[in-house]
Amino acid sequence: MRPIAITIGDAAGVGPELALRACADPAVRELCRPVLIGSRALLTRVADRLGLGVPAEIEDPSVAGFDPAAVEPGRIQAACGAAGVAWVDAAIAGCRAGRYAAMVTCPLNKAALHAAGVPFPGHTELLADRCGVAGGEAMMLYSDTLAVALVTVHQSLVSVPASLDPARITRIGVQFAEALTRLRGRRPRLAVLGFNPHAGEGGLFGDEERAIVPAIAELLQLGWNVDGPLPPDTAFTAARRAQYDGWLCMYHDQGLIPFKALAFDEGVNVTLGLPIVRTSVDHGTAFDIAWQGRATHTSLVSAIALAMRLA
Amino acid sequence: MRPIAITIGDAAGVGPELALRACADPAVRELCRPVLIGSRALLTRVADRLGLGVPAEIEDPSVAGFDPAAVEPGRIQAACGAAGVAWVDAAIAGCRAGRYAAMVTCPLNKAALHAAGVPFPGHTELLADRCGVAGGEAMMLYSDTLAVALVTVHQSLVSVPASLDPARITRIGVQFAEALTRLRGRRPRLAVLGFNPHAGEGGLFGDEERAIVPAIAELLQLGWNVDGPLPPDTAFTAARRAQYDGWLCMYHDQGLIPFKALAFDEGVNVTLGLPIVRTSVDHGTAFDIAWQGRATHTSLVSAIALAMRLA
Repeated sequence: MRPIAITIGDAAGVGPELALRACADPAVRELCRPVLIGSRALLTRVADRLGLGVPAEIEDPSVAGFDPAAVEPGRIQAACGAAGVAWVDAAIAGCRAGRYAAMVTCPLNKAALHAAGVPFPGHTELLADRCGVAGGEAMMLYSDTLAVALVTVHQSLVSVPASLDPARITRIGVQFAEALTRLRGRRPRLAVLGFNPHAGEGGLFGDEERAIVPAIAELLQLGWNVDGPLPPDTAFTAARRAQYDGWLCMYHDQGLIPFKALAFDEGVNVTLGLPIVRTSVDHGTAFDIAWQGRATHTSLVSAIALAMRLA
Repeated sequence: MRPIAITIGDAAGVGPELALRACADPAVRELCRPVLIGSRALLTRVADRLGLGVPAEIEDPSVAGFDPAAVEPGRIQAACGAAGVAWVDAAIAGCRAGRYAAMVTCPLNKAALHAAGVPFPGHTELLADRCGVAGGEAMMLYSDTLAVALVTVHQSLVSVPASLDPARITRIGVQFAEALTRLRGRRPRLAVLGFNPHAGEGGLFGDEERAIVPAIAELLQLGWNVDGPLPPDTAFTAARRAQYDGWLCMYHDQGLIPFKALAFDEGVNVTLGLPIVRTSVDHGTAFDIAWQGRATHTSLVSAIALAMRLA
């Protein structure tokens, strides 16, 4: 059984609890040997509070300034942001050294990262930086019924057009198509979305589609099965969903609104373009229900299963 | 039984066929007295081809340059664009004169309108202009499970921020809340969406939310039950859908992507802010299946039923 690294995320969020539950889940132990990356003392505190067991396999790197006894559930704490990053770093090192087949991450909190002075808005950018591929990564949200990849992610909507160049769209299209080929066992049919309403209506409602058209031509040239630029509003109707395996989206909400509306509970976040396999749950730290025994670990189990399929 | 005007839309699209079917549908005749607005000769041609009956009540205004025998199904024709507008004008006149309780429109084709030199991208803008309320209208997409209203509609995405001012957002919020109150029989709970990913993440990913915040304060002040600005990506999850009655969206695809993904077949397009009641089907001219007996009139029946509830 191959070992997989599971980072517990922000210690004050639902991550520790989800990680403990996933570790004990027979569905997970059938697939891999889960190793939690985080503070053993903190995990023991959470486990005691919720009547859960503490798994034997924990990688607990020392983190300066992190006091597990001082963590308050549901509160933004700089120390939790910093520790969360240290645990991600340990998992990356373990994956790159071949000790782990893949890594799966529990959620970090953006405000806690910011309070800790971490210059990344989230995992994706952090991982790309640490793996030396900054700017070459991409975010895919995957479920067996719907998969979207994002050409741009955490940036203002008006700044998106400047990031839409044909080379970038093509590169992410290829990464997406390759991942889907591995997951589905056949060449995927890709929908490439426009940026504007009605995909610009022939230039009447904007012309950002001019950067998308050559990328589609290039993807076709490379032998991939792609359509577009599609009018975004009808790209996710039931009829269209039967027609495609993946949707290449130009901005965050264009892909995540339909994904979370249609496949919220099964969603797994996959970072494409890294030298290691990394998946993540499709939700945030959920501070409002942290350490209360109310969080469900379905998404984490899906993330672990998908990581093993990709590894 | 109150008379209702049904315009047949672009003669080369699915409109004539849908209008004929709706007229004959007992579900429609139970609700109202449907009157088709369009060419009797054209409707007879389509009815003969498909083995349908021609209804007795047709308002057939003379339209210069429109030859019903020359219409080719599935083709963009300037004459069809011009006739489509003339029929909408007749319906508006009938509604304003009190001859019709409401009007329901079958789809027009943007390219045919353009070919005919019509300076409007669609019905909504045409209706607002003819009713003398240009700039005061708004588009709502309604189904009994989901309702969205759009602060901006047919414009490029980068031009949206300049259209997001607090007064406009407030005005459309009030129109939306009033329509939902009429339809649901109680004060609705409204979700007001942000513009940027994560609703701007506190200014990190854009600051267009600064125009939305005062509109929400104003709507609350007016006594409406509103939340926001919500992060758009999670605004349409199943949990959120149970929490709200309506979603006030900042741009076309923010509202129409989730609406068409979740409620495509039941969707009715309602124009808010007009002195008359107008609803419409939630699909286009579908030139690829026009006059073939393959189009379903479910959406038109829903549009007629909703018009009668609003009238």
